[in-house]
Amino acid sequence: MKQYHPASIQEIRLKDCFFSNRIRTNNDVTLPANVRKCRETGRVDAFRLNWKPGMPNQPHIFWDSDFAKVIEGMSLSLMLYPDPEREKELDEFVDLILSAQQKDGYLNTHFTVVEPEKRWKNLSSAHELYCAGHLMEAAVAHYKATGKRKFVDCMARYADYIAEVFGRNPGQKRGYPGHQEIELALCKLAEVTGNRKYSDLAAYFINERGQSPNYFETVEHAGSENNQADRPIREMQKLRGHSVRALYYLSGAADVAAKTGDSSLFEACERLWNNVVNQNMYITGGVGSSCDGEAFTTDYNLPNDTAYAESCASIALVLFADRMLNLTGDSRYADVMETALYNGAISGLSLDGDKFFYANPLENDDQMFEHGQQRRKRQPWFDCSCCPTNYCRFLPQIAAFACSVSDDCLAINIPAASSGNVTLKNGFLQFELSGSYPYDGAGTLKIQEASGECSIALRIPGWCRDWAISLNGESVSAVPEKGYVRMRHAWKKGDCIEWNFEMPVRVLHANPRVSADIGRAAILRGPLVYALESVDNSVPLELIRLKKGTAFSLKPATDLPEGTLAISGNAMIQADTDQLYFEGELALSPGRFTAIPSALWQNRGDSSMRIWIPEAE
Amino acid sequence: MKQYHPASIQEIRLKDCFFSNRIRTNNDVTLPANVRKCRETGRVDAFRLNWKPGMPNQPHIFWDSDFAKVIEGMSLSLMLYPDPEREKELDEFVDLILSAQQKDGYLNTHFTVVEPEKRWKNLSSAHELYCAGHLMEAAVAHYKATGKRKFVDCMARYADYIAEVFGRNPGQKRGYPGHQEIELALCKLAEVTGNRKYSDLAAYFINERGQSPNYFETVEHAGSENNQADRPIREMQKLRGHSVRALYYLSGAADVAAKTGDSSLFEACERLWNNVVNQNMYITGGVGSSCDGEAFTTDYNLPNDTAYAESCASIALVLFADRMLNLTGDSRYADVMETALYNGAISGLSLDGDKFFYANPLENDDQMFEHGQQRRKRQPWFDCSCCPTNYCRFLPQIAAFACSVSDDCLAINIPAASSGNVTLKNGFLQFELSGSYPYDGAGTLKIQEASGECSIALRIPGWCRDWAISLNGESVSAVPEKGYVRMRHAWKKGDCIEWNFEMPVRVLHANPRVSADIGRAAILRGPLVYALESVDNSVPLELIRLKKGTAFSLKPATDLPEGTLAISGNAMIQADTDQLYFEGELALSPGRFTAIPSALWQNRGDSSMRIWIPEAE
Repeated sequence: MKQYHPASIQEIRLKDCFFSNRIRTNNDVTLPANVRKCRETGRVDAFRLNWKPGMPNQPHIFWDSDFAKVIEGMSLSLMLYPDPEREKELDEFVDLILSAQQKDGYLNTHFTVVEPEKRWKNLSSAHELYCAGHLMEAAVAHYKATGKRKFVDCMARYADYIAEVFGRNPGQKRGYPGHQEIELALCKLAEVTGNRKYSDLAAYFINERGQSPNYFETVEHAGSENNQADRPIREMQKLRGHSVRALYYLSGAADVAAKTGDSSLFEACERLWNNVVNQNMYITGGVGSSCDGEAFTTDYNLPNDTAYAESCASIALVLFADRMLNLTGDSRYADVMETALYNGAISGLSLDGDKFFYANPLENDDQMFEHGQQRRKRQPWFDCSCCPTNYCRFLPQIAAFACSVSDDCLAINIPAASSGNVTLKNGFLQFELSGSYPYDGAGTLKIQEASGECSIALRIPGWCRDWAISLNGESVSAVPEKGYVRMRHAWKKGDCIEWNFEMPVRVLHANPRVSADIGRAAILRGPLVYALESVDNSVPLELIRLKKGTAFSLKPATDLPEGTLAISGNAMIQADTDQLYFEGELALSPGRFTAIPSALWQNRGDSSMRIWIPEAE
Repeated sequence: MKQYHPASIQEIRLKDCFFSNRIRTNNDVTLPANVRKCRETGRVDAFRLNWKPGMPNQPHIFWDSDFAKVIEGMSLSLMLYPDPEREKELDEFVDLILSAQQKDGYLNTHFTVVEPEKRWKNLSSAHELYCAGHLMEAAVAHYKATGKRKFVDCMARYADYIAEVFGRNPGQKRGYPGHQEIELALCKLAEVTGNRKYSDLAAYFINERGQSPNYFETVEHAGSENNQADRPIREMQKLRGHSVRALYYLSGAADVAAKTGDSSLFEACERLWNNVVNQNMYITGGVGSSCDGEAFTTDYNLPNDTAYAESCASIALVLFADRMLNLTGDSRYADVMETALYNGAISGLSLDGDKFFYANPLENDDQMFEHGQQRRKRQPWFDCSCCPTNYCRFLPQIAAFACSVSDDCLAINIPAASSGNVTLKNGFLQFELSGSYPYDGAGTLKIQEASGECSIALRIPGWCRDWAISLNGESVSAVPEKGYVRMRHAWKKGDCIEWNFEMPVRVLHANPRVSADIGRAAILRGPLVYALESVDNSVPLELIRLKKGTAFSLKPATDLPEGTLAISGNAMIQADTDQLYFEGELALSPGRFTAIPSALWQNRGDSSMRIWIPEAE
């Protein structure tokens, strides 16, 4: 069933103006800051298993997952930036984790030292299998980065034990995780160990979830709706409940579908994908609109100011999109993946790398800071620090989303500048991809070395209406298939693909059911969703109306990374008033506005921000 | 300092088409339903003080206040609809309450049987003085309704005891209530007992609140912001925190200012009033926009869909407005009082009298019912049932807001049809006030009996631009003072005042800082805020745009109380789409809309509703 797999992050080295510096900053700032926080808060020492009642820093049920994501991030970043000291620190951490494994294979700090009697007793809300999943992902990354098997072997023993505890055989628990994640981790473990048992366990967790009698309701007397356990996945028409759980769940389901060829599972993934992207996704790729349960609510309920749109949820959407893209080779998945990558999934991370949003509102009034709305400022850490630690491991992976590989095809999903060195079944391609994406739609791919005949497939972005591609100076007239223009060739040094994706400023409107967006427009260019930020505009944002039909101009953004383009255009400025409610209308007078890429807001001090801009004639 | 006092509810008997039937329904349906709920939930039996650990229905910290409000409502309603059986039931309830009083005067079910060791230990959040306040209000109403002193005497003993416990003398606690309410209740108790000691205690609670060292923070290690104890009232620039506490607080402060003539306290009331009505009030008179802390947030943060606007908060705004109106005689307070009365304070009560909103959103999408949003359907009861029980006592009081009385003036604040029989210092006025207010601005006041020379002052509603008044057929040309036209006369039978307040449909806009209302308009007529409800409109509400400059027409509303007028006008109907985001614009085609008084929505089944309507050319 599967068409592609992601390129490895060693095969594609990003050199672009949007992500490459941030991936470096993740290595240099974000990872050390998160390591420090894990040490300070007790998340590292928890693995020494010497906590006793009455001592500070009682290991929390989700701590293992935070540290695991940092370990995963350290490992992945080590693949990009070899560093003997970092590797030594990493190995010490891994040894510490290994030392916490119990004889039966179990490995969880909270349920070893705090509540040992509750092991596997509170699956619905105690994050036990979730922590196991993140440890497995960390182990796989550690193995790939260092070639050392000890962590993977340790997690395979843990997975063996879990496979004994859970399942449909007599004496086994018919449970599944309260917070999905282990499903996709088990598929990774199956891949590096070559042991299908682990992906079978993932399939069990996915297929058993929500079956009757309901495990959470009957065994644990807990709810099942917020974690998608109220019905089997194949019977779900809409994606509801906790957004991160939901999208990790679907990512794992897509992995299992890819491994097993299970078409009913794939169809469930596709149906729920459609429900997310056609009815429940912010224009930024943010998902999960409500802080109440960190959840999807109802179709088209997408408020801007109170948007939750958790950073982890957009990251999870990227993971799900990447899997669907590689399963199908269909660029509609890449379109959403790209939107989330350049907007909702990256907005939670400060440019300097050590401050994080948990929630990503699409509108902010700086008055709200007064109201203790700390969620509107990026913070160094949270008690529940899933988002900061998720960035640690997400940033180094970004190159893998840019390109996909099949036996005989390299697919350029996102034409970000990079050096490539990709091995296919039939040969290899070494190339330089240049350009200023996402700020310029023109780019070039130059082959430096190659062998064998294969295809290079270039995605025509969903936002692009006019484009041209040439190969060695000759126009390529192929009709895109599933959104990709495929060029088959016996590639050799000096071959050159050039393209231009026309990148005009676009004005988008929302479905009228999205009440918050009525009478408003969003400004986009290429994959970037723009936002007004108060620091760029002399007029208070609440008085700025986007002049309908305005022309736009581009200019370098102020105090943002080199290459960042701001957009200016004509505005109508509403007259101000002291009245709260009044008859008649306020006058409008001509003015200008400046917008910046929305993910970069709140990097120049506290500010007001607005993505959906009210329009005026 | 004080100019007026409210008319008694026996002096003004409403006969209008908006409130009078609902006051009757309160007597016949709402009160019995609430009595039944109080019995079923254990709120009545709690006063038997025989609860023991392990038994069901453990008396909750706020239960006494719920039952007290029902008792107050029964008493007030008895003044309007004498009923020996009701009086017998009421007396039994009162005897039961009296039987729960302790030897030292203390009276609280929770802290007598559940946590006796915690008496006065958790003022900041345990509602102990709040419950005392509501019991005092109930006692005053019972005395006024029956002439029986036993309940007032009991509560005076309780107040005597409280005055021993709290104060600035050595050995006393320098505390104050976590949930303000007792301040205004003590002023009522002072009035019926003639004992100034009780209003002095109210003054102590108000003046001590927020002083350094902060009682809640230093003694109880609790927060002080959400209940306005973070600074003294005279230093508050903005009203923040829990909206009901805030407005009961200000009502009590206004009472104390009226009694003491304390101008700095009055100025604080006025300053905070201005902050509420000029920056923090929904167009309906709803207040407290956030469910988080049931609280005021920041100026202009007035979302429609997630509006909390608790029923109790609008009722409290009416109580505060009424006090400021009677203190000053200034109609700007009556304007807000009227807005809340006809809109935000009554919307929480179903027309059939036994279902209640806790929160009063200004916009609802019926899809949200699917999402378990029970707050969008009126409910028979809540675990925290402050709102239903508040309606029990609020409805019978409404006539008292309609007219104010001074030594020699009757002020008509709201010209709702009624029979009046008002005693002034210098004589009396018996009259019939007729008309179809709030659906028609024309009205007549005919004197039936009178003695003495005095003034009748008629308020020119703040919403009214064109008006005419005549006395015995001759045009009255007096210029309004503080919004009232004052007619001094030796009134005699047959005298007749006629007026016409032109009542065109008005289209209002909101301050541009209210992000949710940008590009939208609200439709009002007279004091009524109108709303689109899906049951009256064949087109989905999200597609309806108010046509700018449309003419409006009136027609009887469908399936709503007789006399209710709906408003129709031209709309532009937006074409529908399946796309979530799209380039270009959707076509608009002409159509019609129908709007009803917003407080009457959700009386004809589940529906979508929208007060702020997007406009189109």
